[in-house]
Amino acid sequence: MPITGKNIVGLESLAGGDQTVTAINPSTQKALSDKFHVATASEIEQALAKSEMAFSSYQQTSGEERARFLRAIADEIVALGDELLERASAESGLPLARFQGERGRTVNQLRLFADVLEEGSWVEANLEIGDAQRTPMPKPDIRKMLVALGPVVVFTASNFPLAFSTAGGDTASALAAGCSVIVKAHESHLGTNELVSMAIQTAARKTNMPDGVFSSLNGLGYDLGKTLVKDARVKAVTFTGSLRGGMAIHKLAQEREAPIPVFAEMGSINPVILLPEAVQSNHKLPATLVGAITMGVGQFCTNPGLLIAIKSPALEAFKDALQMEFSKAGVFTMLNESIYRNFENGKANALGQPGVKAECVVDGRADDWTGRPAIASVSASDFIANTNLQNEVFGPFSLVVECTDISQVTEVIKSLHGQLSGTIFSENNEVANYSSLVSELVGRVGRVILNQVPTGVEVGHAMQHGGPFPASSDSRFTSVGVDAIKRFVRPVAYQNWPNSLLPKALQDGNPLTIFRKTNGVFGSL
Amino acid sequence: MPITGKNIVGLESLAGGDQTVTAINPSTQKALSDKFHVATASEIEQALAKSEMAFSSYQQTSGEERARFLRAIADEIVALGDELLERASAESGLPLARFQGERGRTVNQLRLFADVLEEGSWVEANLEIGDAQRTPMPKPDIRKMLVALGPVVVFTASNFPLAFSTAGGDTASALAAGCSVIVKAHESHLGTNELVSMAIQTAARKTNMPDGVFSSLNGLGYDLGKTLVKDARVKAVTFTGSLRGGMAIHKLAQEREAPIPVFAEMGSINPVILLPEAVQSNHKLPATLVGAITMGVGQFCTNPGLLIAIKSPALEAFKDALQMEFSKAGVFTMLNESIYRNFENGKANALGQPGVKAECVVDGRADDWTGRPAIASVSASDFIANTNLQNEVFGPFSLVVECTDISQVTEVIKSLHGQLSGTIFSENNEVANYSSLVSELVGRVGRVILNQVPTGVEVGHAMQHGGPFPASSDSRFTSVGVDAIKRFVRPVAYQNWPNSLLPKALQDGNPLTIFRKTNGVFGSL
Repeated sequence: MPITGKNIVGLESLAGGDQTVTAINPSTQKALSDKFHVATASEIEQALAKSEMAFSSYQQTSGEERARFLRAIADEIVALGDELLERASAESGLPLARFQGERGRTVNQLRLFADVLEEGSWVEANLEIGDAQRTPMPKPDIRKMLVALGPVVVFTASNFPLAFSTAGGDTASALAAGCSVIVKAHESHLGTNELVSMAIQTAARKTNMPDGVFSSLNGLGYDLGKTLVKDARVKAVTFTGSLRGGMAIHKLAQEREAPIPVFAEMGSINPVILLPEAVQSNHKLPATLVGAITMGVGQFCTNPGLLIAIKSPALEAFKDALQMEFSKAGVFTMLNESIYRNFENGKANALGQPGVKAECVVDGRADDWTGRPAIASVSASDFIANTNLQNEVFGPFSLVVECTDISQVTEVIKSLHGQLSGTIFSENNEVANYSSLVSELVGRVGRVILNQVPTGVEVGHAMQHGGPFPASSDSRFTSVGVDAIKRFVRPVAYQNWPNSLLPKALQDGNPLTIFRKTNGVFGSL
Repeated sequence: MPITGKNIVGLESLAGGDQTVTAINPSTQKALSDKFHVATASEIEQALAKSEMAFSSYQQTSGEERARFLRAIADEIVALGDELLERASAESGLPLARFQGERGRTVNQLRLFADVLEEGSWVEANLEIGDAQRTPMPKPDIRKMLVALGPVVVFTASNFPLAFSTAGGDTASALAAGCSVIVKAHESHLGTNELVSMAIQTAARKTNMPDGVFSSLNGLGYDLGKTLVKDARVKAVTFTGSLRGGMAIHKLAQEREAPIPVFAEMGSINPVILLPEAVQSNHKLPATLVGAITMGVGQFCTNPGLLIAIKSPALEAFKDALQMEFSKAGVFTMLNESIYRNFENGKANALGQPGVKAECVVDGRADDWTGRPAIASVSASDFIANTNLQNEVFGPFSLVVECTDISQVTEVIKSLHGQLSGTIFSENNEVANYSSLVSELVGRVGRVILNQVPTGVEVGHAMQHGGPFPASSDSRFTSVGVDAIKRFVRPVAYQNWPNSLLPKALQDGNPLTIFRKTNGVFGSL
């Protein structure tokens, strides 16, 4: 499929503007040849108007209809074949094989939401049957369910050109909820975005979805995003990226006349606690950790950026083993110039903080955009005293925090900002001795892991990917897994409606045979 | 029980400051004799420190333990006897009988949350069982449940000294969730607050709850609230009151280094659509509507402030009937001077808007704080053109919006800001002809009602009390009913933990016998 460089505005492809942008191949540091038209003011307005119009009919579609749409998107993405994988690889510097897996994750995610829609219970139907005989006041009949919020703007992620981007988890869950979507294409993967957007457009056409259920716009830096977030027709925003970027969007959204929710998944350093017996006797652990730190050039939000352990001769040997593994890790291209420069600056900044000692710094050419891994160490007291060391260094970097004893480990945990994940490595059930440490960790993270690395976020029913601030802007929601759909809905209660005028999910006899709550009792009544 | 004027700081009662405030009896416009000590900086700090400390143990208590605490609070409130009702009446100008009902609502609410805790399924346990054999990657074991956010600050409501105040729905649901609570006492009912706070303190002592699980502070205007909202230890805020007050708190909370959720229930004008056949033939409707508009001197957030109908001779007769009922309505004291003055100003402002015609303005003395009911009318086109007419006039005031036809009714609905409720009165199933009107109404409200008045908010499982902005700051949550508990929790996923170290709600074999989701399937597995 040839790249056209056009904006996808509902069922149309538009390129009215003269201004163009290009994607860059980070491996060669050269622009790819295709030019992408920056959306004009009129094209942005058309996308917004269509999105609002499409929402009014799309929100009324049945779960089966929306499921068909999501499955069609998955099929069209698969139909793009190798061209999609090659383009994503060229725009990201990541190997082709990575996109085999990421494409699988993306289409499975779409199909999982289709399953959820077909099953139907996600609307949380909750019926309280009226009782005219109740005294002193008759009991009204009240029946509640979730309804879609409205048009959603999706900011795509640099580090997952497929799974967290154009047809990624945010778009899939917003479309599943019954919201229309406008994607702001990521400057780093404009071609990948166009290919996937065309797949969604084709799927919308084939399944008779309303014109405007999906749009995707190219834009320059901050301007396009700002216009979209400030528009009164937009009812929610998702973002995956830096704390600075996420908070800028959050601020814009809160300053609107009618504030809207922003689901920003931002920085996290994902503390990993290495209990003494694990340091002593888990000999595979250094390789496991270095694998997690350097995988994907460390460009994962769940990258373990902090290793917390108690000083001991065993820890010295453990650090030696880490260094050994690091030196074998290799050096790979980062996603784009800005990520590369931020990584180099962040790493240099961390290494320059008081008390920080470089344990292993992999060298490499300075004239390309490769992320050279590094590991450093610092005492717990220096770490606790210096919140600069809690800034995420996005890339293959990790800091060993050395504690005097287990109570200082707890102090380090207590000093931490909110995190996506917290991990404990324990041998021989040693963790059972430290329930208050676990409880402090749980209080600061969205996911608490034992003896597995935090990277690799399973897409399923029970995943929580979102933690206390600044890990995400709203810790009550997840951006990965089935419950991501809950970000785009609100409850509406119907009081005293006749059965025939109620939505099917709330009707007597449960015609959708979904899981409901009736008079406070759970069950399929 | 004598009023002491002290601040309740956990299990202590403190009065270290010299500054005092008094409550005023709105019926006499005179200060009541008791003096209440304004919390000193040190007392505020103690309340915050205790609240954080208490949270760490309180969040670990079982559902049964917290249920016992909530039931004890209800019992202690009942034990206060008539003294509580008399004090609430003196501080609000509302009749004693009203507080019989409001006390019942308050204690039933506490007991309902106790039921929910004892049943236990509210934690939304969600298990995804691991599978080491899955290819290409083993499936991790992930189990998710809701955990408490942390200390919550509750701003109490002027119009419900019991049910939305010290031990009202916000406090009850936050305590149920496992959060500690700090109440900012309302200046209008300081004595009522102290009595109820003492009841909570006694209940905490009797059920061995940690010192600091509950505090209640007296303060001057904005200062105390600001200090509490800005404190990093506070993790959520609830507010019931004006748009201006709610947004000021929202802004403070968003400007914090770590923003926190604010659940502000603010202004609503609760549109009521009168379909032609109801205007024509529901002869009880004028009395029903006037009853709802004037009940409690109109001081309810669900007061019907907008009556939308199609011009016709029948509507003229309907308005005459409304006027007749209004003239019988009587004149009663409002809650406090500020509410009285805001009502008079809001009413005058509405009556002075272009095209607004006074239909019925009940006269009365201007030197007391009685709320004199008024009803006005305006054409749909003037209403749509003038958003000033969407400002809530808190008190017994309603505006009839006269439309040319049903499509203009829909235009009026489309022009509305978010609302707590929207109501339709229909005879002979006329509403069945107007599905797009219903759909536009649903899109703007939290609760959609047929043939019942919006006042009288049932406390139960299916209630939704919260609507799109500006009705509330977060339409995804309710401040009334069982689901109010969801405001104070976030999900945490446990990955790869042995059964013995998991919270009971997530353990194999379901030892709490709660309703759970397992591998995506609902049921008590």
